[in-house]
Amino acid sequence: MKKIGILGGVGWPSTIEYYKSICSISQSYWEERGHSTPLPTPEIAIESLNMNFTVNNRGSDATSSWDVWDRYFQMALQKLEDGGAELILVASVTPHARLEVISQRLKVPVLSIYDAIGQFCVSSGIDNILVLGTLPTMTSLAFIKGVSKFGVNAFYPPRTLQSNVVSIIEDLYHDRVDGLDASVESIVEKSYPLEGKGEFAACLGCTELPTAFRAIPTKPVFTKNRVIYLNSTVIHSLSAFQACLE
Amino acid sequence: MKKIGILGGVGWPSTIEYYKSICSISQSYWEERGHSTPLPTPEIAIESLNMNFTVNNRGSDATSSWDVWDRYFQMALQKLEDGGAELILVASVTPHARLEVISQRLKVPVLSIYDAIGQFCVSSGIDNILVLGTLPTMTSLAFIKGVSKFGVNAFYPPRTLQSNVVSIIEDLYHDRVDGLDASVESIVEKSYPLEGKGEFAACLGCTELPTAFRAIPTKPVFTKNRVIYLNSTVIHSLSAFQACLE
Repeated sequence: MKKIGILGGVGWPSTIEYYKSICSISQSYWEERGHSTPLPTPEIAIESLNMNFTVNNRGSDATSSWDVWDRYFQMALQKLEDGGAELILVASVTPHARLEVISQRLKVPVLSIYDAIGQFCVSSGIDNILVLGTLPTMTSLAFIKGVSKFGVNAFYPPRTLQSNVVSIIEDLYHDRVDGLDASVESIVEKSYPLEGKGEFAACLGCTELPTAFRAIPTKPVFTKNRVIYLNSTVIHSLSAFQACLE
Repeated sequence: MKKIGILGGVGWPSTIEYYKSICSISQSYWEERGHSTPLPTPEIAIESLNMNFTVNNRGSDATSSWDVWDRYFQMALQKLEDGGAELILVASVTPHARLEVISQRLKVPVLSIYDAIGQFCVSSGIDNILVLGTLPTMTSLAFIKGVSKFGVNAFYPPRTLQSNVVSIIEDLYHDRVDGLDASVESIVEKSYPLEGKGEFAACLGCTELPTAFRAIPTKPVFTKNRVIYLNSTVIHSLSAFQACLE
């Protein structure tokens, strides 16, 4: 298996979900093939950044305003490549908006979460996805553009419901899980009434959200009350695991 | 804060506990000092090995039998140093038995878990520790020798009870937690009747064991039914965080 690099720390709980997900996917894969224990995992390098520094160095629309932020990410990606990573993931949706800039000097591929989700939708016959995520995710066009090249139509909850999504993520971050699956379901229902629509899924586009459903770290998709939910962390991790087998 | 390197993957759940522990300790530290959010964490690099390879390349008593294993660990430690880690932890008790060999060419310090626990016992006035851990830990003299230079007397449960410790660890690894705190307490009581003894602690010398008590990832020590328990992962992580502040 190829060595996987993970750019993490933004935030660190999300890095844990990615690492756990890749290791669990690998162990399930080798267990199904009758491999002896301990079940193999790929070698994985992680560069975990200081989120206090990244948040305080976010840019604006002004030219050069992202320079410090970009350089911080570029250096960490370079370290992963120098340490032998053969493919890299950024373990967070939000920095993907600047993925092209920060990865342009690398020789090894950085697998985009937009590509992973776009490809997954194509192979699953899903045309429309409602993306639930952090406020930077739901107020940027990056996710929508990222999956549109696969013919997938992504959209966000209406502005009035976005703050509800954010407060659910906040609760999950502090381990208050009870009843939040129903809150997510209600937002989905209000954002996209299901009657008479085509193939649709709600994309949990932030690492905390699947924990509301106590989701399994190896399952890219699950269904509840007729709604298909995509676990973006698992879909992204699966794309890395498949690439590391090639 | 200095950059911390973690040698992990043996096994990966243990690596998660170390990473979570260091990040949580850092956030608590800065929160107590009134720092603004997001609370800072040190930069952390992780090299996660394939445990299938490490276990299948364990040596014996024969000369050179550990060569492949040693080289695998040495290369990963070197990558952490090359990537800018200023201090390193091995996120597992068992490989500490070969720590001197694998770390001898490094310029940066590798903080031993034996030193961290020995120093913690000295500063807490604990003279005797019962070490509960994996079978390789409880059948090697390395832990006992490692803390003896701090004047700490370490010992293991009697052979007849060691298999009980191992089966508890196995249960915890598979997330079967209920009632296991009582099982650990029973082993401690049978291994070391408390009446009339000096300052004593039970050292949970394996990352899974504290989860039996649903231990908090920032607390190095807790007490239950008059027994002091040491959380070796937190003590090791705390020693790294203190060193990264210096």
